Amino acid sequence: VNGRLLITCPDRHGIVAAVAGFLARSGANIITSDQHSTDPEGGEFFMRMEFTLEHGDLGSLGHAFAQEVAERLDMRWRLTDAGHPKRVGILVSREDHCLVDLLWRHRRGELDASIDVVASNHPDHRADVEGFGLAYHHVPVERGGKPESEARLLELLRDVDLVVLARYMQILSGDFLTALGVPVINIHHSFLPAFAGASPYQRAFERGVKIIGATAHYVTEELDAGPIIEQDVARVSHREHPETMVRLGRDIERIVLSRAVKWHLEDRVLVHGNRTVVF
Amino acid sequence: VNGRLLITCPDRHGIVAAVAGFLARSGANIITSDQHSTDPEGGEFFMRMEFTLEHGDLGSLGHAFAQEVAERLDMRWRLTDAGHPKRVGILVSREDHCLVDLLWRHRRGELDASIDVVASNHPDHRADVEGFGLAYHHVPVERGGKPESEARLLELLRDVDLVVLARYMQILSGDFLTALGVPVINIHHSFLPAFAGASPYQRAFERGVKIIGATAHYVTEELDAGPIIEQDVARVSHREHPETMVRLGRDIERIVLSRAVKWHLEDRVLVHGNRTVVF
Amino acid sequence: VNGRLLITCPDRHGIVAAVAGFLARSGANIITSDQHSTDPEGGEFFMRMEFTLEHGDLGSLGHAFAQEVAERLDMRWRLTDAGHPKRVGILVSREDHCLVDLLWRHRRGELDASIDVVASNHPDHRADVEGFGLAYHHVPVERGGKPESEARLLELLRDVDLVVLARYMQILSGDFLTALGVPVINIHHSFLPAFAGASPYQRAFERGVKIIGATAHYVTEELDAGPIIEQDVARVSHREHPETMVRLGRDIERIVLSRAVKWHLEDRVLVHGNRTVVF
Amino acid sequence: VNGRLLITCPDRHGIVAAVAGFLARSGANIITSDQHSTDPEGGEFFMRMEFTLEHGDLGSLGHAFAQEVAERLDMRWRLTDAGHPKRVGILVSREDHCLVDLLWRHRRGELDASIDVVASNHPDHRADVEGFGLAYHHVPVERGGKPESEARLLELLRDVDLVVLARYMQILSGDFLTALGVPVINIHHSFLPAFAGASPYQRAFERGVKIIGATAHYVTEELDAGPIIEQDVARVSHREHPETMVRLGRDIERIVLSRAVKWHLEDRVLVHGNRTVVF
Repeated sequence: VNGRLLITCPDRHGIVAAVAGFLARSGANIITSDQHSTDPEGGEFFMRMEFTLEHGDLGSLGHAFAQEVAERLDMRWRLTDAGHPKRVGILVSREDHCLVDLLWRHRRGELDASIDVVASNHPDHRADVEGFGLAYHHVPVERGGKPESEARLLELLRDVDLVVLARYMQILSGDFLTALGVPVINIHHSFLPAFAGASPYQRAFERGVKIIGATAHYVTEELDAGPIIEQDVARVSHREHPETMVRLGRDIERIVLSRAVKWHLEDRVLVHGNRTVVF
Repeated sequence: VNGRLLITCPDRHGIVAAVAGFLARSGANIITSDQHSTDPEGGEFFMRMEFTLEHGDLGSLGHAFAQEVAERLDMRWRLTDAGHPKRVGILVSREDHCLVDLLWRHRRGELDASIDVVASNHPDHRADVEGFGLAYHHVPVERGGKPESEARLLELLRDVDLVVLARYMQILSGDFLTALGVPVINIHHSFLPAFAGASPYQRAFERGVKIIGATAHYVTEELDAGPIIEQDVARVSHREHPETMVRLGRDIERIVLSRAVKWHLEDRVLVHGNRTVVF
Repeated sequence: VNGRLLITCPDRHGIVAAVAGFLARSGANIITSDQHSTDPEGGEFFMRMEFTLEHGDLGSLGHAFAQEVAERLDMRWRLTDAGHPKRVGILVSREDHCLVDLLWRHRRGELDASIDVVASNHPDHRADVEGFGLAYHHVPVERGGKPESEARLLELLRDVDLVVLARYMQILSGDFLTALGVPVINIHHSFLPAFAGASPYQRAFERGVKIIGATAHYVTEELDAGPIIEQDVARVSHREHPETMVRLGRDIERIVLSRAVKWHLEDRVLVHGNRTVVF
Repeated sequence: VNGRLLITCPDRHGIVAAVAGFLARSGANIITSDQHSTDPEGGEFFMRMEFTLEHGDLGSLGHAFAQEVAERLDMRWRLTDAGHPKRVGILVSREDHCLVDLLWRHRRGELDASIDVVASNHPDHRADVEGFGLAYHHVPVERGGKPESEARLLELLRDVDLVVLARYMQILSGDFLTALGVPVINIHHSFLPAFAGASPYQRAFERGVKIIGATAHYVTEELDAGPIIEQDVARVSHREHPETMVRLGRDIERIVLSRAVKWHLEDRVLVHGNRTVVF
């Protein structure tokens, strides 16, 4: 099996030696290893290791790791099986570019995941999604009917490991996020923290910026304020108006979102307060 | 003589023909010409033309242009002599990278200007500035002594055509800007409108952004809110902390500021409300 | 009608005035205008004007333009009707990313064209292409059967205005290009002139470059040597190997190709020897 | 003391554990650690670790490391003292931008080095270099006098750890490189492998590329063919001509060279055949 071990703990002497020594003793061969420390003195330490384990299973390995290493070093940790793709649910509204891009990348084998759910508050994308061999769930949000819609979404998404908001324009309630209980990645069509909220391209135009951007972040209850995973930008000149910025922005949005989703699926993203470490 | 004609007016039929026809009749040969219209129907029209004039002078040409073209088409316009470099004053505080970069580019012939004044509220850069053969004015800002300092600066800057704030960390009063009466270009060490105000790199670090930037803009009374001339960015990862962002930012700041200054010196920047057209 | 006038001629005094004056007299209102001169003294002059013509037709306008302006100023020129989208043929081999991207952009309304022909030497993309409501032509290239394949392609493409090679991996013969008689845009998966020819990502890996790229260019008989329309790049580190470069490259290729095609469709590209002017 | 351990060896099980375990037993605290493997099965393994050692010295540590770890695992390795800045020699010809940039960065504390020698085949930069408090050596290269010049340079450079060619336009002989015996970093003013050799901007202009670049690489006997450390690029349009490309290129060259030099000084660059691993 191929495993991934992710660790966050207070930095101190000997962490790498302890973890690498444990894996060596357990017959695991480290393929890649990344570390980061916010401060070698009293900071926070982050590590990601990919390894192959020729004999034995990840369950026993994790059990031993907890006892022999993690507890003593005060670690929060996760051990994932690289051979078990995560199950993903995608929510989308009218704009199709992020959705189509994710489905196409999935088909090309770029995203190691199973796309289990695609749902939208609009009926528009049924043919596209079914063309990729996936079911399409239309979950309209009526005026005053958000609780019913969110209940329906919770039901659809109950088995996924990750929810991707691929330009889903409904604000999700804190109750929904709590009940969901898995990470949610959103793509915001601006270079956060600039232009959080509605109509970012219009506001970028009005401010006269020379560069526009997009931001993929984990969703928290506070709108557009969660930990940023990835951002990218494109130059604009005085020739652009809000409509052409929307068009240029689509290319940034889909690329930024797909990078963030890919990195999350490969367990490369560790959250630290309101920041991320991306290995 | 080489001239530059800059025009802003309501868009309507026949502007290009009227201007180009006038120049042709006047014996001027157009070298480059740029136009922009916010909307061909009822929008604002912008034009910049560079031309050579073999006989005659720009004064007479301007006089004729006002009578024959500009008044009829409701134009605001400027006619500048490309052979008369603008006179520039530079204000700087502790950080020397933008100052040194401007002086070096000037010596290399990249900036068509005469640098008439270099002043600072710190004494630190005297040797550098004098090494470039320029005088250095130390104008300290004592607690409560801003009016005296600004009066001294006004005196020093009374003959310049442009003031460049090359990381000058004192806020200039509205009275000063009014009395100065010439454009002021500032470099702000963030990707505006994100992180306007103090300590932008610290705040960028705290927000966990993946890209930092710098912004050159014309100074208005409202801090960091004037028309943006140029912006650029650089990627940062979780490995950076505020101090390394400051270092990375220096490279962006000096390049963004030098572009904005160069474009202004070549009369490429037209202000339109709070936006700029950069030809 | 909306028209576009494209002009190449020896630079001399009064060109802009002559053209703009002609259009004004003809009742045409210039919307945008771009000029470029390689050298005001004895260089080549390029111009693109978009205009609206409220009365009259482009045919008569062109006739008058030839007589009154073009002949006298030794111009090569084209007059196109912006309301008549160009007819496009797309050729593709195994890699689907450029094809799917063009079809999706066309559906989104980003490309002002009619896609009349999609043909491939592989059968693989039929379902995708038909899903966009278009016919799919499988034109296999047997060993020794290139003349037959090219004859079949010529028949299919006989009415198109532009052929796009969206990762079409067969080399087209000079006879084919001559018989075709319309521009052909190719996407090459390297930063030309580096790594012209086969396996560019493998060779980029072997050379140890830190940046990879893609190039869209007009096809000439000499392989990968035609006029470049657009290029873009992405950073790579020692972590990438040829396979991951291929994946990263796909995002650059499809964006670079789509920009080049869009600019061509909008008559923004003028060829000058082996270079392009892109307005 | 702060130490840096750099390792290259055949990849196999347990390397990280062996090294980290050794350092932990020796009382060294790992601050940062980076690994890379070209292939976990039979590939080459690269590692860089920064650590603090509270008791003991690096000499003894290295001695023990050789015996206990390195020999058994077939490692090539280096152990450097982060508190001993490398001694640098800079060679330069007429163009001053890379030289001035390196001197300025050194003064700002961006480059952890002592600049021991600045030499040039031109007398032009004496005032600048002396203004930074450094000696300037004029070593002209007469026609047919290259052996004498190289002998003089060898004498000047006999104690340096690194030579930087900051736009030094003389080709260094293989004998010189051998006799020198330390790494040499060159900045080439093109995006290698495109436009190796002379006049790259002129040739970039003639080929009509839309992006220009610069490349920092280790010098080998074959011109412009050594391992690439860093590259960067800038967009150009049809408006640029060779002279303006030269100007735009200066900004890329100095930034690319300074990055490569900084990384080398921090022992971040490992050479692998004709490629580099940059941690």
